[in-house]
Amino acid sequence: MEKDQASFAMNVSSYVKKESVCVFGTGNFGRSLGHRMFQCGYSVVFGSRNPEQSSLCHKEIEVLSHAEAAQRSDIIIIAIHRDHYKFLGKLAEELQGKILVDVSNNLKINQYPESNAEYLAELVPGAKVVKAFNTISAWALQSGTLDTSRQVFLCGDDKESKQRVMNISRTLGLTPLDHGSLVAAREIENYPLQLFPMWKFPLYLSGALFIFYFIYFSLRSIIYPYVNKNTDRTFVLALSVFNHSFSGMAVTLLALVYLPGLIAAILQLYRGTKYSRIPNWLDHWMLCRKQLGLIALAFAFLHVMYGLALPGRYSGKWYLANRVIEQIISNKTDPFLTSNVWNFDSALTLGILGFFLFILLGITSLPSVSNMVNWREFRFVQSKLGYLTLVLCTAHILVFGGRKFVKPPELIWYLPPTYVISLIIPFVVLVLKFILVMPCFDRSLKQIQQGKERNSLSKKVQLGNNNTEV
Amino acid sequence: MEKDQASFAMNVSSYVKKESVCVFGTGNFGRSLGHRMFQCGYSVVFGSRNPEQSSLCHKEIEVLSHAEAAQRSDIIIIAIHRDHYKFLGKLAEELQGKILVDVSNNLKINQYPESNAEYLAELVPGAKVVKAFNTISAWALQSGTLDTSRQVFLCGDDKESKQRVMNISRTLGLTPLDHGSLVAAREIENYPLQLFPMWKFPLYLSGALFIFYFIYFSLRSIIYPYVNKNTDRTFVLALSVFNHSFSGMAVTLLALVYLPGLIAAILQLYRGTKYSRIPNWLDHWMLCRKQLGLIALAFAFLHVMYGLALPGRYSGKWYLANRVIEQIISNKTDPFLTSNVWNFDSALTLGILGFFLFILLGITSLPSVSNMVNWREFRFVQSKLGYLTLVLCTAHILVFGGRKFVKPPELIWYLPPTYVISLIIPFVVLVLKFILVMPCFDRSLKQIQQGKERNSLSKKVQLGNNNTEV
Amino acid sequence: MEKDQASFAMNVSSYVKKESVCVFGTGNFGRSLGHRMFQCGYSVVFGSRNPEQSSLCHKEIEVLSHAEAAQRSDIIIIAIHRDHYKFLGKLAEELQGKILVDVSNNLKINQYPESNAEYLAELVPGAKVVKAFNTISAWALQSGTLDTSRQVFLCGDDKESKQRVMNISRTLGLTPLDHGSLVAAREIENYPLQLFPMWKFPLYLSGALFIFYFIYFSLRSIIYPYVNKNTDRTFVLALSVFNHSFSGMAVTLLALVYLPGLIAAILQLYRGTKYSRIPNWLDHWMLCRKQLGLIALAFAFLHVMYGLALPGRYSGKWYLANRVIEQIISNKTDPFLTSNVWNFDSALTLGILGFFLFILLGITSLPSVSNMVNWREFRFVQSKLGYLTLVLCTAHILVFGGRKFVKPPELIWYLPPTYVISLIIPFVVLVLKFILVMPCFDRSLKQIQQGKERNSLSKKVQLGNNNTEV
Repeated sequence: MEKDQASFAMNVSSYVKKESVCVFGTGNFGRSLGHRMFQCGYSVVFGSRNPEQSSLCHKEIEVLSHAEAAQRSDIIIIAIHRDHYKFLGKLAEELQGKILVDVSNNLKINQYPESNAEYLAELVPGAKVVKAFNTISAWALQSGTLDTSRQVFLCGDDKESKQRVMNISRTLGLTPLDHGSLVAAREIENYPLQLFPMWKFPLYLSGALFIFYFIYFSLRSIIYPYVNKNTDRTFVLALSVFNHSFSGMAVTLLALVYLPGLIAAILQLYRGTKYSRIPNWLDHWMLCRKQLGLIALAFAFLHVMYGLALPGRYSGKWYLANRVIEQIISNKTDPFLTSNVWNFDSALTLGILGFFLFILLGITSLPSVSNMVNWREFRFVQSKLGYLTLVLCTAHILVFGGRKFVKPPELIWYLPPTYVISLIIPFVVLVLKFILVMPCFDRSLKQIQQGKERNSLSKKVQLGNNNTEV
Repeated sequence: MEKDQASFAMNVSSYVKKESVCVFGTGNFGRSLGHRMFQCGYSVVFGSRNPEQSSLCHKEIEVLSHAEAAQRSDIIIIAIHRDHYKFLGKLAEELQGKILVDVSNNLKINQYPESNAEYLAELVPGAKVVKAFNTISAWALQSGTLDTSRQVFLCGDDKESKQRVMNISRTLGLTPLDHGSLVAAREIENYPLQLFPMWKFPLYLSGALFIFYFIYFSLRSIIYPYVNKNTDRTFVLALSVFNHSFSGMAVTLLALVYLPGLIAAILQLYRGTKYSRIPNWLDHWMLCRKQLGLIALAFAFLHVMYGLALPGRYSGKWYLANRVIEQIISNKTDPFLTSNVWNFDSALTLGILGFFLFILLGITSLPSVSNMVNWREFRFVQSKLGYLTLVLCTAHILVFGGRKFVKPPELIWYLPPTYVISLIIPFVVLVLKFILVMPCFDRSLKQIQQGKERNSLSKKVQLGNNNTEV
Repeated sequence: MEKDQASFAMNVSSYVKKESVCVFGTGNFGRSLGHRMFQCGYSVVFGSRNPEQSSLCHKEIEVLSHAEAAQRSDIIIIAIHRDHYKFLGKLAEELQGKILVDVSNNLKINQYPESNAEYLAELVPGAKVVKAFNTISAWALQSGTLDTSRQVFLCGDDKESKQRVMNISRTLGLTPLDHGSLVAAREIENYPLQLFPMWKFPLYLSGALFIFYFIYFSLRSIIYPYVNKNTDRTFVLALSVFNHSFSGMAVTLLALVYLPGLIAAILQLYRGTKYSRIPNWLDHWMLCRKQLGLIALAFAFLHVMYGLALPGRYSGKWYLANRVIEQIISNKTDPFLTSNVWNFDSALTLGILGFFLFILLGITSLPSVSNMVNWREFRFVQSKLGYLTLVLCTAHILVFGGRKFVKPPELIWYLPPTYVISLIIPFVVLVLKFILVMPCFDRSLKQIQQGKERNSLSKKVQLGNNNTEV
């Protein structure tokens, strides 16, 4: 039936008369949105207090008084600061039944008792308020939407009004997403005010790790020599403490990227199903793996910079000069030990290859690159290459650390050297992974992840599409 | 009323018969556009001089003679080189009333006296000419539009024709933007021929800065020693001149990224409003801040490479060997000075951290990354972290430079060392910023930027949406 | 006529009643797709075996039995694992005439004898099957489609059904692309299972090159000293072999990026036309130039890391110390040779500038950056700057290699040093390019590429749009 009614209308939307939209407010955002709608084929009219004073860029766009402008269209974009909404209450008659689109943002999270959109709905009870466009910047509208988020979050109590604002969004090349009734406006208004919410936990964790390494390294390298030998070695605070901390943090954070996946797999093996929920802390941990990995990469980068700068340092040169002078004084030249070359050079090669793969992981996590790869390729890079990176970095620290201590690592006040501490979590992760890829566990895990349930009597048939991820 | 008429038509566009489009020209672009339209649901027919000779990839797409093809559709894409438009004049009858879409580009800016689209309109006066699709490449149409610009700039004198071409663009997954009447075709045809217009000023400025540093450094390091001591030090031209120039240029250009914002703020404070226009030169300067910053990053990168390569150089090794030999000959070994360690290592740490933040700024300016962050996050990175980068880099140069000259910097021919020159603009910027963040100025500035006008009697109510930026 | 019928319907799509869609399967993908469709304005109903057990996130989305749900909509998304399709056969009556959208993927390429979509069409012969959405991940649907591929590949035997699924895709903010009849489902199902198909040839080539360099370098640096002087120099395997191989590979692979374009140009010159097809091997080579270039950049990066790490190595320090001791013992100090400074420093400067441009090329090939540049800018960077990079890198190796051998390079077993081998292909490419840019060849080539045909009697008029690339 639907079909019969419509079959005679051929590509109606191609021929339609232009829809008109009204914009209240001639500020930066209002102008940009109005101009963009005009460019996309709408007839646009502005409402302003001083219509004769306002000069807009295009002669085909009229500027009228608010009351006049409101009569031209049943959709009105309210591009006015919330503080000035008051006057809209006086226009109640003109705005009766109209769709008011609240595009406003605040300066602080939860700045006002209610959301701007709800406040607007209170002021003009006869209108249908839709919250939209607040995540789109004036700049994005002016310059084209390519290099910015295209998502328009909408909410409102009237479904048809939302549909119409969604259609406008689509015509502007944006992607509308309905967030439900007007109560959601508060949440939508807070979106543009958030400051890296997903980065908080990884950053705090890195801070805590840095403090730990800082104290640990200071204990062994500053306080111990001072207490036992009365030597002043505070100068390590200028550089060495950073270099040692950063290398340890990089490899530890990288291992922490892979740990939650292993814990989840163990949970699945233990429970025998993938359908029971993982604990919240684990879920949150898994959601910020990308951030953890990128912070790990940042510290790896800093460590590489420090490492490459070492030979040019004053102390590096001084020790080298001193060693030559000692040889000459003692009249004994150090022999060329190929075992030293092997040690140092293989540690270096491991580190350089590890750092290269680390950067590759980072590049692949760039949104525009991860776009280009399919799911299998993404998994290959982030999982296979990721573990290879962890193995190489762990081996790099092990060989470099072990190089200095052919004898078992020296304990100072029962404390092993920093590099031993750095290796604990990577070792745990690699051992767990090694156990889980052994055929017996691997097989059960694969079965579980494809939806089989062990000891299950349920006749559940509907399984997740295999796009599901662990 | 509008509503009543339409309410019975349920999702008409879902059921419509296919619209047909004709493409004149079977070259690379014509084929790609035709194939893409076919994939997106249009019925496509090609017009060609030798229809029997043309083999197209799909059997459902017909190739006919021009006259025959023109009768199949009222939209005709002219994918033919401008030099061959002539024959279209002879088809005037068949093209009467049709929409002709000019997709052509030229090889040079302003190659012909009038734009191709206007020339086409002259040749076929009875047709409605629309300029479109010239910024879309054949490659993008073939490979999917993801990794390329999606914006289609349109212009034309007939509004309905433009609407229909806009609809086609949207169906192909592109974003059409109306640029007005056909006169705009010239501008649209020039877009794909521009060569980095926004980069010109920053690149010229960098060139000028490099020449300045080159001459300045040569004066102190080559000409002065030659004149005063008759020493040949031209070998600094192979590397040192680049290293010193690049470090100075990096920090100076970074400071120049932040200077225009400060000048604008001072102007606003002085004028007491944000509504009066800033001068054109300042506007242009502000628009190319991103380019300035990226060029600064390039020079910082080069400086870091040079810096890390220093200890491996012949001269580095020679001086070290020479110093050891001097110590042995004089029988006096240099003591290990912890103050030197502090100086060198802290300068290095400052530089490495500054470079890291610099790279972070660069990564955040990648379009696909800046997409992901909201306005507040973008401001935090580009403003807060940006100033921190400037502080770190300035401190790095200060400590490194100051290291060699515990005594006041040596003037040669009244010229201070290069590093002093490098620090002038960064110091100015940091001092200005320091003054402007002082509570008294900061408060007035925030009020102005939120739209308050000092000493103002205007009753202006409509303020910019707070998306506005300074 | 079309126009008359439609002219009274004003923007119909703005007012329409919601279209309803049914989703079979409440797994991860089904839920994500259903929720997204709900957010974009569809009324969504789920079909499930245990409707009472299923808890979905939104109270407005109903979960019914399969049979009931099927009656609510004539579009049914089958988000069920292929292994469980069987039960759909029993619902044949309810599914009669419905559009079934197969969204499934397999775990392996060609896992089943026929594609999942064809299998579904066999099971429910009365329904119209459309393959779609299988390249879209659940994650992308949940998080917004920005950072993932938006392309939906469709195929199916019923055109109208495909049109309707295409419309849904567009409403979700995705870009549908028709791949023809249902036979294409196999190909579409294989897309998400491919593992870097374009990278295979470049990676194998790199592997072969590495093996070659490894053996060549080992012959000269390990086997020759062992055979002739009985010296054990296997320790070069820890690092030097990588460093020398990587530098050679980087410059060779970069040259191989530009060689196919030159061969194609020579072919065009020889044939006198751009219209005859280039050989398949050349076509494939040209298609993976980007990948070749990025692998070349990877090796350049590794070489730079190795190069910067050299002075800090044990052997580097030992040789330096040893040289000082030798000078003291022989009581003869090495003079400071400015020619050595010139050699080393200019080689370094060439290498650093070459590496910088190399990275610039890499950044420009990031999808989100290549978006922002027009065709002319892209050509400028990838062609002009690309050749400049090749010149700088070639010069870097030449000066660095030549530095050690002022006398003609030493042949060992008739083998020239590695660096001479590295330079062969870059030299060939640069000489060919030099010949082709000479005015006589350049002019003919430009004419050919603009579509002129030498000695041609053909009256071909339609030429490619000048977007065509070589």
